Amino acid sequence: MYYLKKQVTFSAAHRLCSPFLSDEENFQTYGKCSNPNFHGHNYTVEVMIGGEIDSRTGMTIDYRELENIINEEVIQYVDHRNLNIEVEFLRDIIPTAENLAFIFFKRLEGRIREKGYKLISVSVSEKEENKAIYSPYQIS
Amino acid sequence: MYYLKKQVTFSAAHRLCSPFLSDEENFQTYGKCSNPNFHGHNYTVEVMIGGEIDSRTGMTIDYRELENIINEEVIQYVDHRNLNIEVEFLRDIIPTAENLAFIFFKRLEGRIREKGYKLISVSVSEKEENKAIYSPYQIS
Amino acid sequence: MYYLKKQVTFSAAHRLCSPFLSDEENFQTYGKCSNPNFHGHNYTVEVMIGGEIDSRTGMTIDYRELENIINEEVIQYVDHRNLNIEVEFLRDIIPTAENLAFIFFKRLEGRIREKGYKLISVSVSEKEENKAIYSPYQIS
Amino acid sequence: MYYLKKQVTFSAAHRLCSPFLSDEENFQTYGKCSNPNFHGHNYTVEVMIGGEIDSRTGMTIDYRELENIINEEVIQYVDHRNLNIEVEFLRDIIPTAENLAFIFFKRLEGRIREKGYKLISVSVSEKEENKAIYSPYQIS
Amino acid sequence: MYYLKKQVTFSAAHRLCSPFLSDEENFQTYGKCSNPNFHGHNYTVEVMIGGEIDSRTGMTIDYRELENIINEEVIQYVDHRNLNIEVEFLRDIIPTAENLAFIFFKRLEGRIREKGYKLISVSVSEKEENKAIYSPYQIS
Amino acid sequence: MYYLKKQVTFSAAHRLCSPFLSDEENFQTYGKCSNPNFHGHNYTVEVMIGGEIDSRTGMTIDYRELENIINEEVIQYVDHRNLNIEVEFLRDIIPTAENLAFIFFKRLEGRIREKGYKLISVSVSEKEENKAIYSPYQIS
Repeated sequence: MYYLKKQVTFSAAHRLCSPFLSDEENFQTYGKCSNPNFHGHNYTVEVMIGGEIDSRTGMTIDYRELENIINEEVIQYVDHRNLNIEVEFLRDIIPTAENLAFIFFKRLEGRIREKGYKLISVSVSEKEENKAIYSPYQIS
Repeated sequence: MYYLKKQVTFSAAHRLCSPFLSDEENFQTYGKCSNPNFHGHNYTVEVMIGGEIDSRTGMTIDYRELENIINEEVIQYVDHRNLNIEVEFLRDIIPTAENLAFIFFKRLEGRIREKGYKLISVSVSEKEENKAIYSPYQIS
Repeated sequence: MYYLKKQVTFSAAHRLCSPFLSDEENFQTYGKCSNPNFHGHNYTVEVMIGGEIDSRTGMTIDYRELENIINEEVIQYVDHRNLNIEVEFLRDIIPTAENLAFIFFKRLEGRIREKGYKLISVSVSEKEENKAIYSPYQIS
Repeated sequence: MYYLKKQVTFSAAHRLCSPFLSDEENFQTYGKCSNPNFHGHNYTVEVMIGGEIDSRTGMTIDYRELENIINEEVIQYVDHRNLNIEVEFLRDIIPTAENLAFIFFKRLEGRIREKGYKLISVSVSEKEENKAIYSPYQIS
Repeated sequence: MYYLKKQVTFSAAHRLCSPFLSDEENFQTYGKCSNPNFHGHNYTVEVMIGGEIDSRTGMTIDYRELENIINEEVIQYVDHRNLNIEVEFLRDIIPTAENLAFIFFKRLEGRIREKGYKLISVSVSEKEENKAIYSPYQIS
Repeated sequence: MYYLKKQVTFSAAHRLCSPFLSDEENFQTYGKCSNPNFHGHNYTVEVMIGGEIDSRTGMTIDYRELENIINEEVIQYVDHRNLNIEVEFLRDIIPTAENLAFIFFKRLEGRIREKGYKLISVSVSEKEENKAIYSPYQIS
């Protein structure tokens, strides 16, 4: 089987604040990430798909096509945006890396399946040293 | 002569919007960076100093000491902050990388001079592929 | 179980052009990658193996030994070469990253098995943001 | 399921020398890594955990909490140390990347389980191009 | 004074071969880079300019404008091309990194000057560990 | 004028300890870097030279030739070594990054001059975020 990993980046503002927690609990839980005036990151998103190769082209999905799908479903809505305020599909979602990975997965899943591939995982990093990954499969 | 370059990072929200420009001109000038709801970045700051070596220690300024100065004068005020709203020394400043480099330089200059070194330049990057540098010296 | 990942790089020219497609279809499929005069990349290859540790040495396969095998089976034939013209084992293969990953896997598999390890996957990147991986196992 | 990968770094001296081998065999096995006066590296450790998300916070384990555990169980003992001489839990262990990955895994496993997550793998790199990974699970 | 550094990348095929040298001398001079079937690289170009800040916008030249100029004068002609065969402005030029840096400098110089800035240097890398820089100024 | 920057790496053990300071002063000055059992790093050395281009070859000094000189004068003596104990030309030198940059400069200067080029600076990094540079010229 063949697998592709495609990385894209976007820049956005966010803050972490749970409606289920008091202000003090929010600060205890999220520290400086709970700053009410927002902070921001250069996010890296890594999408992993699996599938068969097309023997006529020697390719699975074309990287450009995969990038277009990611742009259409995710990046155009979040790049240079405020993730708490402006993004319809993040309404009522706490924009942690884990939640972003899950939501982005759900938005990409159908488009990838239509093309004949399997979406395996979506990883979201706020900083290079941290990655949050959502996958419906057991990964390791 | 000896030179040190020290990189530190911080994460912040900002938007670019000039009080001298109309909304439309702001959008034409700054594009999506003018989004009124802010966006954000992981910023990299590189500070370059010059000076003599202390023959007893084989060091110019200690990296930890230099890092402390940068934290005390710059990072603690901007990390996980909104650069348009919360930072006293950025009040009325458009938070472009160029302006940040200049302001950070001015805040660090005295502290570095007191220690016996010369502050040569401060570079600020919003993204790895772009660097804005301020220096009172002719650099190249 | 223990796993090793070893990265090596090579520089090569290639073009993407399928004998099953017309010139126009080739351009539609591969875009500027179909340029008949070739273009090129710094490729990164990542080889992943699995196996047991040798309790006398605390190592699985020695990195240097693994690197030698990769050089002997792959790198010496492709580095500073034209992948469409000069490489015997790529004759009649469209040199996409997917096909390279598969062919490199097949060339390495036996050598790794002889040493007592399992070759798990081979990844090939033309650019840092894109990875094509071949593995006979289900990975994620 | 959700997965987190957290990278941390440390700097240490080590040498590779097996008590089961003669000096000559040690040199043949480990090459310049067997230098009796030690050499050293900037090590990168990547810890991967899996678990469920807390719906109130949108997080699995907090990165800061994960980092604290890694510091308490591993980094404080090995950073700026000599891995052959000074580290109690590495006594009689040949400090290869494979062995470090295994020992670090064993030290972290209980702490991660107590928090309600599963430790999936620990990876140790002496150099960016080489990674040794220990996992009790079948990974790929 | 303010300085901007902007990095862009392109992928191309090339070979090194001097018309002043015999085949054997070419091989002695350029080694495997003289392969007549070409090889290729992911090139990184770094353009450094200097100038004053526009106090109304807080910017020197806009990064997007700078990127457009570099694309129009350089990248569109060399990306996914064969530098020995297809590029009009490289005709009769041996495509070493040094020569590319010089030619790119000459192509960019006028455009940057028109905008009111000074082009300080152009750096070209075939690989991350090597940089060739052309500058009419004394740099260091 | 043309400039080349060449990066090479080596791995070594060291400790920082000044004969002019007491044990306590050494600890206060160097912190954990003064650990008597040594620690270590992957060092990066960047050598910058300047010179004219050879119009027959389109090159200044060949990268391979420059790399050979750096290996012969520096790397072969320090790679996988203990900088405090084993390196003749570092005897009685505190192996700070500043001192290494100076000593490496002095060892390379003559060899580069013989070839007709000017050695401009040598930079030594113990970690990516810190660089110490020695240059007899005013740099910035």
